[in-house]
Formats: sequence, structure tokens, C-alpha cells
Amino acid sequence: MMLRRWQYGLLSVGMVALLGILSASGGWLGRVGAQESQTHYLPANADTVHWGYFSQAIAPKLTVNSGDTITVETLTHHANDDAARMVAGDAGAESVYAWTADFKAVDRRGAGSIDPAVYTKGAGEGAGVHILTGPIYINGAEPGDVLEVQILDVKPRPSGNPDYSGRTFGSNAAAWWGFHYNDLIEEPKPREVITIYELDATESEDYATALYSYRWVPQSDPYGVVHEVIDYPGVPVDHSTVDENFEVLEGVQIPVRPHFGVIGLAPAETDIVDSIPPSYFGGNIDNWRIGEGATMYYPVAVEGALLSLGDPHAAQGDSELAGTAIETSLTGTIKVTVHKQSELSGTVLEDLYYPLLETDDEYVVHGFSYANYLEELGESAQQDIYGQSSVDKAMRDAFRKMRHFLMTTQGMSEDEAITLMSVAADFGITQVVDGNWGVHGILKKSILPPNV
Amino acid sequence: MMLRRWQYGLLSVGMVALLGILSASGGWLGRVGAQESQTHYLPANADTVHWGYFSQAIAPKLTVNSGDTITVETLTHHANDDAARMVAGDAGAESVYAWTADFKAVDRRGAGSIDPAVYTKGAGEGAGVHILTGPIYINGAEPGDVLEVQILDVKPRPSGNPDYSGRTFGSNAAAWWGFHYNDLIEEPKPREVITIYELDATESEDYATALYSYRWVPQSDPYGVVHEVIDYPGVPVDHSTVDENFEVLEGVQIPVRPHFGVIGLAPAETDIVDSIPPSYFGGNIDNWRIGEGATMYYPVAVEGALLSLGDPHAAQGDSELAGTAIETSLTGTIKVTVHKQSELSGTVLEDLYYPLLETDDEYVVHGFSYANYLEELGESAQQDIYGQSSVDKAMRDAFRKMRHFLMTTQGMSEDEAITLMSVAADFGITQVVDGNWGVHGILKKSILPPNV
Repeated sequence: MMLRRWQYGLLSVGMVALLGILSASGGWLGRVGAQESQTHYLPANADTVHWGYFSQAIAPKLTVNSGDTITVETLTHHANDDAARMVAGDAGAESVYAWTADFKAVDRRGAGSIDPAVYTKGAGEGAGVHILTGPIYINGAEPGDVLEVQILDVKPRPSGNPDYSGRTFGSNAAAWWGFHYNDLIEEPKPREVITIYELDATESEDYATALYSYRWVPQSDPYGVVHEVIDYPGVPVDHSTVDENFEVLEGVQIPVRPHFGVIGLAPAETDIVDSIPPSYFGGNIDNWRIGEGATMYYPVAVEGALLSLGDPHAAQGDSELAGTAIETSLTGTIKVTVHKQSELSGTVLEDLYYPLLETDDEYVVHGFSYANYLEELGESAQQDIYGQSSVDKAMRDAFRKMRHFLMTTQGMSEDEAITLMSVAADFGITQVVDGNWGVHGILKKSILPPNV
Repeated sequence: MMLRRWQYGLLSVGMVALLGILSASGGWLGRVGAQESQTHYLPANADTVHWGYFSQAIAPKLTVNSGDTITVETLTHHANDDAARMVAGDAGAESVYAWTADFKAVDRRGAGSIDPAVYTKGAGEGAGVHILTGPIYINGAEPGDVLEVQILDVKPRPSGNPDYSGRTFGSNAAAWWGFHYNDLIEEPKPREVITIYELDATESEDYATALYSYRWVPQSDPYGVVHEVIDYPGVPVDHSTVDENFEVLEGVQIPVRPHFGVIGLAPAETDIVDSIPPSYFGGNIDNWRIGEGATMYYPVAVEGALLSLGDPHAAQGDSELAGTAIETSLTGTIKVTVHKQSELSGTVLEDLYYPLLETDDEYVVHGFSYANYLEELGESAQQDIYGQSSVDKAMRDAFRKMRHFLMTTQGMSEDEAITLMSVAADFGITQVVDGNWGVHGILKKSILPPNV
């Protein structure tokens, strides 16, 4: 027998939120009180970003209340693949990317060592790549709560270079960490290839086109370190050293589906965490469905939740096969809502231990090779995760999470959950390139009984 | 640079077909001549089905010309999970399922042994399960050609029992070969569960509902063999031995997406081939997209192609997690067209070595753990495939096939194909239960340049 939600007489998430507004009693509801929700703006610049890692130790760049709306600028970490189009004339990007022989605006770029005696490529090297805006501290969010992030709007960031007015550019790197890299058929093998895409900054076109491509050749960074492959984020590419091929994907129109590769909270397990592997706290999920109109729910691990956003994408396919999407700077407007642990029972957030996506039509659970790799793989987790992932493991995890969702939040028996999954849930390959590989399970809301 | 199809001045598939009609010259075109396309009807009964295997040695049940239309009845091999609703009063199903102590209408049910001294569960045991209607011999089809199967219409088969007039029933078995089976959390563990679904036979409703479920208990077949688990197809379930639970998935509506789990051609590698693992010749692909409006293309391996259809499904999720779909008898109307090897160049069928799906909006390539397991795994392939599959391998194969499709039929360089896949192709998990596990890659047609 299936116990329907309304048979419990329990509240839906929406009703809990409504009560939050009405309530004047204790807890975060009391602290928020009758306060009206506010709007905020968080620009991206060297002072508001952290590069390549999550950490509970970063001072918040903004503090907001549950129910507030925030417009957040995010920058792609691939802008220096074509600095003329993606950095030049853009004050925020110039601020973040500033790097000369004498000055590097954002030194740490990853969770790796920042000891010059230890690293060989750059500070933070080898463990993280994404420019993340934040963190945002949400008042009243505590471990055990769930943070709702509603994505109200996503806009491409126009090129700051007057030569390219009205256009937005992005970079796709077919890189050494791609699924294809050791399985190439054309010479030279192996090779890394950058393809620069462009799209209309006003969103009047719903597609992107390839502009040109080049093969990566060793690049010297401003400190004089030579990068034989793409092994450190933000290395400026000297375009006098590469062959630009403008005859690429002629006539091909890539559907634009702007989204954030990374939205995540600070994890509790350890202090500085590589931005690449996604996990229970969200992070680099790389699901193209996490765009305008989507709502994400994340388990809160630390006080204030510490929300960061980045890795903006103009378009990505399920699997992100070659290692990256169309990496494009975007500005998003989000609304954040704290759901207190004590009020989750009987909602779709009950016992939530994974990042859950909700759209108008679907619920999507996110499985990974390891549901919580930091905990499961122990002290060397951040190194070991890269060698231990598989789609098979991620499928196993996605199955368990979908079963959990159906049994815990929909009151189904295990037998009901399993037959339903077999006949109606769709499992897809989110990504095979982010250390902790991902499989998502999609459940259409129309399948479920109406929530009377 | 991408060489566009129209730059070759080559013909599209549609144009080749048109020329086929107009041509009076040699080859199959000549044999077809000015003949008008015919329509045929192939019922399902004990004389027109083969159960559990493909074989080039089966005498054709129907011979047709390229361009002909055939209405084909297909029967689910799970009808005896509830014979009252899915066999009784249905002359075709009764003919196929007939089995008493003295008579078994279709003895061989699989590619296993038919020597009573060898088998323990039944003739053909352990290697194949599907009731397949056919084979259909298509005049002029030769090895190296491609057979196009256009699915014009798919209709549910109404129950033949007057007690259930106007309804169609199906069975979902959460079986021992399901992905969930060794990973259950509720007791008793392990267990197999049958859920009987129903839908409107006139298609006025677009959803199915669960009617009742029961846990499998050992069943004695008419020959007295006891089946502790679901280990032989078509064993009649004695409903006095099972507990029917009618409180199952109340209020849940499963979207109906009728399709054929199996459409395939006879393989060339060996004589009698298990119907379960899909391969280059199609077979048990279990992609719910292979329904009305879809067109499939298969490499022809033997003279006449020898097309069979079966494993009809009312609905299935990507992954077919628990081992089966809603297994429901269906009747399909298909149009078959032979594309000669010499005319494939410059079309989407050039060098086709895998089953390709085309819909109005998409091309879908089908990857498997082994692209041709019969060839790759050698003499013991039919046993070994069950222990050697993984989603990772199927993802690898799907990547290679999508790359092949883009490079060979769309004239792209490898670099173009790879960036396109990373930003715009979606890879999903077709099934993890059919021995040779599957991943499909989806490419939207709108991405490609118009075929001027």
C-alpha cells in the first residue's frame, strides 16, 4: 500500500514556506519575523570570488535572509582561452584574471598546495578549477536544514570589448580529462582542442555557433611556468602561438540552455575542498537542467550554508563528454529559502541527503559514484576519487536515491518504488569528467497522485 | 572544416528511396520494378512465432518486398503472469501459450539446449525469453545492406476475456536479473515481485495504472518442473498460490509510451542466438523511443534480412531498472525499405554498423557494452556476455558510434564531432538488465545544417 502524503495531513514545501512568512514564533522563522524579503546584488570581482575550491573558512561576501533574492554575477574560468573576447573591457573579469610577473589578483586556484616550494604549476594546483562567486551566508541556515535555491533568471554576460558589442562568447575545451582523450582516431594523438563559441547577448537567438578552434600548444604563464597541457586554470593563451581555424562546425546551431555547472554549499568534512567532484552538498553537478525555472535543494552542512555559484555554461550535453561545456560567463537571479530540519517531514525534502532538482514538470535526483566521497574515501578522498569513479557506481547511487525519494517522500513501499522506477523513471548520464561521475534519475511529477 | 552533405552532391536517404521507385535497372530495384507496394498482415500464433531466440535457419513466415507495409501482432512473454487477463479468450495467445502435461505448442523457448537429458527447467532454457513474430523475409535484402523499419502505428491488444472488455493488461516483473535485486532494503530479501498494470485498449487514456501485485512463489509448470524463481518463460502462474495485493501505487498514472523492446534481424555469426542481449542487428534494445513515429535502421547480416518483432511494452523507463517494462501485447504496422549497400554513401546510413533510430526531431545511436558481442567474445559469447557488461563500456561504445555518425555521415572532423558531442549530445542509460548493457546517444536534428 502506498501512504499518500495527504493521508498524513502533512505540509507541502510550499505550505511550510507560507507558514514561515506568517509565523512569529521561535527558530529562524522568529528571527526572520515580519521582515520583508530583500534584493541583493553580488558582482564578480577579485574580492567576491574564490577560485577552485569550497571552504567553510571563507568569509561570507554577502549575508542574506531566507526569502531574499540575489542577483549573482558568475565568471567562466575559461575566459582566458580568448581574453580579447571574454576578459578585455570587462572590469569584473579583468579584476579576477589580473596576473603579471609581479601581481596575481587571485593566487589560490584550487584546493592544492599554496606553498611555492611544493607546487609546480601554480598555487592551489591540481585540485579545482572553477571561479566561484560567494560564499553567501544565509541567516538561520544550520546543519540538517535544507537550502532551496530557486533560479529566477539567467542572462549571458555581454563581451566587455567594444569590438564585440552585443555578443557573448564561450569556450569548449576538449581536454585531457575528457572521456575521449585516450580514444582518439585522428592524428596528432593525443591533443587538446579549444573551440570558441558565440551567442547573442540579448538572447534573441536560442542557439550558439562555433566561431573558431585551435589546438592547445604549450603556454607560458606570467610567472614563466610552461603549461604543456591545460593543467592550471586561467593561464592566458597567447594567440600568436596557436593556429586559429575559422572553418569549424559551419551551419551547426547549438541549442542554448544556460545553466550553472556549480551551485554548492560549503561541505563540513574538511576545510578546503576541490571544486571539481560534485557531492551531497551540490557543487559541480554539471546538469544542464539547473537553469532558469529550476529549483535546487541542498542539505546544509555548515552554519549559514555558505552558498557559492560558478562554472556558468551556455550549453552542455548529458555526459559533458570532452570535459567541458560551452563555458560562458552568466548572471543569475536566485531566491534562497531555508527549510528547517524540523519542518521537512512530509515534504519532498524529508531526510534529504543529496542535491534534488525540481522543475515545473520533474523531480531529478543526482547520483554519484560516491554519494559522499569525502566521508567514504577517507583522508585521501580528494586524490582517490579521480581513480575510482564509474558510471556503474553512479547508476547504483542514483537508483538508491530515487528509491529513497519515492519511499520516504511519497510513502511508497520498496516494491512500489521499484516497479515505478522500472516502467517510468529515466536515468541519464550527467557527466563522466568530474572525478565523481554522475547519473541523474528523472521522475515526471504528472506520474504522482495529485497533492490534494 | 566540415564537409557538408550537399557539397558532395550526394543523395539523401529519402531521395534514394524515391529513385528506388522510379528505377527499372538491375539489382533489387529491378526486381521490385514498377510493382506497387503491398500490405500484409502477420498474426501471432504458434505457427508464426519463435520463442527466445534469433536464427537464420527459421523458415520465413512472410515474404515481402521493399516498400511493403505489414501489420504484425506481437505477444508479451509475460502474459501467463495473469493468464485470465492476457491469454484467456485470445485465440493467438492461447495458441502460443498452450501447454499441458501432454502438449506444449512452442517447445523451444530460448537458445539453450533442447535435449531433455541436458536441460532442467525446459527446452531452450536460460538463454532467451521473448516471443518473436516472424521472421519476415524481405526480397532483395543482402548482407551489407541496411533495412529501414518505419513504425507507422502501434496499438494495444485488447484482453480476449469478456470480463475485461475494452481493457489491456501488462505485467512488470521485478526479477532476479534486475539491477535492484541484490540491493533490497525491505524483507524478505531477495524477492521477485509481479505488478499487473492496466490501460485503456482504445488509447483514450494516455496512462497506465497498477492493478495489483504479488510476490513470486515457486510455480509448478505443466510438466511438473518447479520454478523457484522466474527462470523459464511462459510458466503459468497459479493464482491460488499467490497473495494478490490490490493496494498498489494508488493514484499513480504511468505515461503510456508503447514500443517494441525487440525488433531485430537474424545475426550471421552463429545459428541460434539468445534473444536477450541486443547487438548490431538490433534485437532487445529496449529503448522506449522505438514506438509509433520512429524509424529504425539495421545492418543486414543475412539474405532476406529475416526481421522479427516482439517484447512489446506499454511503458519503460531509461535503464529498465527492475528487469522488465510494462510487458503488454501490441500490434504494430511497419513499413520496410531496403537500402542497398551501394547507395548508402552520402546518407545517414553510410557505413552503418549499429542500430540507428530516427524520429522527427532526433537521431539516436545505440551503444552496448560490446558492439558485436558474438564476434568480440568468441565461442562462449552467449554465456560470457552476462558477466562482462557495464555502463562504462556501453558509454564508450555510444561515444564511438556518435563520433562515427558525425564524422562519416555529416562530414565532420574528429575535433568537430567531439566538441559537438560535449556541448549538445545527450547520453542516457537504455538498459542495465539485458546482458549486453546499453547507452544511447541522442542528437537533435535541428543542430545540423539544413540538408539543402
